Amino acid sequence: MLPRPAGIVALLTDYGARDPYVGVVRGTVLRHNTRAVLVDIGHEVPPQDVAAGALWLLAAAGRFPPGTVHVAVVDPGVGTARRLLAAAAHEGYWLAPDNGLLSHVLAADPRAEVRAVDPAHLGLVPASRTFHGRDLFAPIAGWLSGGRYGFTALGPRCADPVRLAPLGAGDRRVVYVDGFGNLVTNVRGDALGAAAAVRIGGRELPILGTYADVPEGAPLALVGSFGLLEIAVNRGSAAVLLGLGRAAPVELVPSPRTSA
Amino acid sequence: MLPRPAGIVALLTDYGARDPYVGVVRGTVLRHNTRAVLVDIGHEVPPQDVAAGALWLLAAAGRFPPGTVHVAVVDPGVGTARRLLAAAAHEGYWLAPDNGLLSHVLAADPRAEVRAVDPAHLGLVPASRTFHGRDLFAPIAGWLSGGRYGFTALGPRCADPVRLAPLGAGDRRVVYVDGFGNLVTNVRGDALGAAAAVRIGGRELPILGTYADVPEGAPLALVGSFGLLEIAVNRGSAAVLLGLGRAAPVELVPSPRTSA
Amino acid sequence: MLPRPAGIVALLTDYGARDPYVGVVRGTVLRHNTRAVLVDIGHEVPPQDVAAGALWLLAAAGRFPPGTVHVAVVDPGVGTARRLLAAAAHEGYWLAPDNGLLSHVLAADPRAEVRAVDPAHLGLVPASRTFHGRDLFAPIAGWLSGGRYGFTALGPRCADPVRLAPLGAGDRRVVYVDGFGNLVTNVRGDALGAAAAVRIGGRELPILGTYADVPEGAPLALVGSFGLLEIAVNRGSAAVLLGLGRAAPVELVPSPRTSA
Repeated sequence: MLPRPAGIVALLTDYGARDPYVGVVRGTVLRHNTRAVLVDIGHEVPPQDVAAGALWLLAAAGRFPPGTVHVAVVDPGVGTARRLLAAAAHEGYWLAPDNGLLSHVLAADPRAEVRAVDPAHLGLVPASRTFHGRDLFAPIAGWLSGGRYGFTALGPRCADPVRLAPLGAGDRRVVYVDGFGNLVTNVRGDALGAAAAVRIGGRELPILGTYADVPEGAPLALVGSFGLLEIAVNRGSAAVLLGLGRAAPVELVPSPRTSA
Repeated sequence: MLPRPAGIVALLTDYGARDPYVGVVRGTVLRHNTRAVLVDIGHEVPPQDVAAGALWLLAAAGRFPPGTVHVAVVDPGVGTARRLLAAAAHEGYWLAPDNGLLSHVLAADPRAEVRAVDPAHLGLVPASRTFHGRDLFAPIAGWLSGGRYGFTALGPRCADPVRLAPLGAGDRRVVYVDGFGNLVTNVRGDALGAAAAVRIGGRELPILGTYADVPEGAPLALVGSFGLLEIAVNRGSAAVLLGLGRAAPVELVPSPRTSA
Repeated sequence: MLPRPAGIVALLTDYGARDPYVGVVRGTVLRHNTRAVLVDIGHEVPPQDVAAGALWLLAAAGRFPPGTVHVAVVDPGVGTARRLLAAAAHEGYWLAPDNGLLSHVLAADPRAEVRAVDPAHLGLVPASRTFHGRDLFAPIAGWLSGGRYGFTALGPRCADPVRLAPLGAGDRRVVYVDGFGNLVTNVRGDALGAAAAVRIGGRELPILGTYADVPEGAPLALVGSFGLLEIAVNRGSAAVLLGLGRAAPVELVPSPRTSA
């Protein structure tokens, strides 16, 4: 069953804070639903980094109230023929370009339903070919959050959204480096099995519970804020200490010392 | 006719995110109108850059719901005798120091009305001479958005607000570089005439519809998110590729290849 | 008497904008109080800098409406046994780890009351040991702001919260450098006495009212946006001009030239 819109619009973009673009999107959502409650998931996704944006969205899945309309605009193909998607998943709604941005959110909800939005059918003619966040996503988010259009009215079902490789598929590696220098891997926290340590950059690091389980400046592994295995340094930056970044390979090390 | 306040306060400053100053302004608006809906236009206007702030405001004009109170604080002369202005324009309200920040917003609405706010008359004595965003702009925005004072009660009409040179006047040039490295010019998108290309930094670039109309890494010109002609690079930075920045001259090139 | 919750949750963290963490906290507050009004004090406290966070909180004290729930997460000891505190002070509520973050807020309100929150008693079992902002602070903030739990139900009174050295105690020095390069000292604006100038970095600078009281590029001292004495440069950066930063010593200079 589709959730009732909660009037909340949660925004994620790669527009950054350095320009007025996010502000213009916020205003446009409000123009289409004056009572919308706007919340930022964040706007500093690295520019045009769809893979990172997909991880951010996964971090937000299930965190907002049921019926929240999540809007994600990381859109290197803006103005081309790439489709505009709407999804119902995790008891909420999701709007994004069809470039893989919704991959992890969809993979994590087996009941997810996707539709290809038809802007012209909704009466939308974008004023620009470079700012669909303002001209398409914002009006649709306003209308969906305010109940002017229901989810099923947005367009026909879409069976083949663009998909990134699922988390947990392929080689184990670093997929994201956060602002603190934590190296976030594609190993799900619930898929560690008997592993008690990880091998990365020539080191073996124990999988522990929190940063302070090692001395200041020492590295460790833990299940972090994304629910993924990550490499961290107590009060420091793993990226700096280890000199590693995205794509660095990671191995799980089962250990005789494991007690669980 | 003056619009009815919508209870929305849209904030623009150059305070940045690195300090608690914007947060303090937000709290102060709420203290003067507990039901105000706060929205950020943005706070990373380059410090004290009135010309950039004026462009940001223009980008926001007409984007928020009618009756929105827009508050703009880029104010190198804070604490001096410069006036504090309130304007009714674009079906909304605008508060800003009298330093040219409202120039483009006022120029774009022939029915705009401006008043010089008299803080003492409203009972406001600023606690500091350096933080009028908190001590003057925030209370006035709270009161205006909540209906405690109407626009005409804020002060007498002002016939001579400080004005920057209008967009489109003077030499064609880059007036803003955005966070993606797009070079935004002072050429209005509706003033291109028969131009099919631009000349900038010794190159001639076609005026096209969107980034993907050229190969990755290639430069082009288009009408961008400000409604102004801008120079961009598909999935890259025009500022970096061309080695150009603000004030770089631009020429329009009419072309026999033009089809429209 | 305890203030009635206003439904407003004001957030301060050191999470930064570069990751989705603040967005996840926002969503989680809303999940626990769908009608909460979220406001950012700010999220760019330097990572794990409790002393700076304590200053930011002081800047916010008394600025938000009575009954606001302020949530402050600068928490290098996350996941350890450090306590989680709730305070009633300045007609509002304050949630923070017990690491000194509330020091200045508590010191500035003699009627402040502090409680040690018992998350287990509230039914909270954190999903992670690294993200208490999401797993503990956000739910408690949602519940407290929405009235599900009153302040006194959060846990027993706490008589010995961790305290930083009070402002004004110890040597006079720079305690914070803001984003504009202003050097903020630990000298309270109401404790200047007969001082008419300050000595810092081998210079003597007059204490004046606003930046424009000196020529562009010249340094001065004034009582700034924190209510503390700060060293500034008109349209410039004192940190750059003087080559000074945190911990630089400052002296007050009583002057025969003083007129007030």
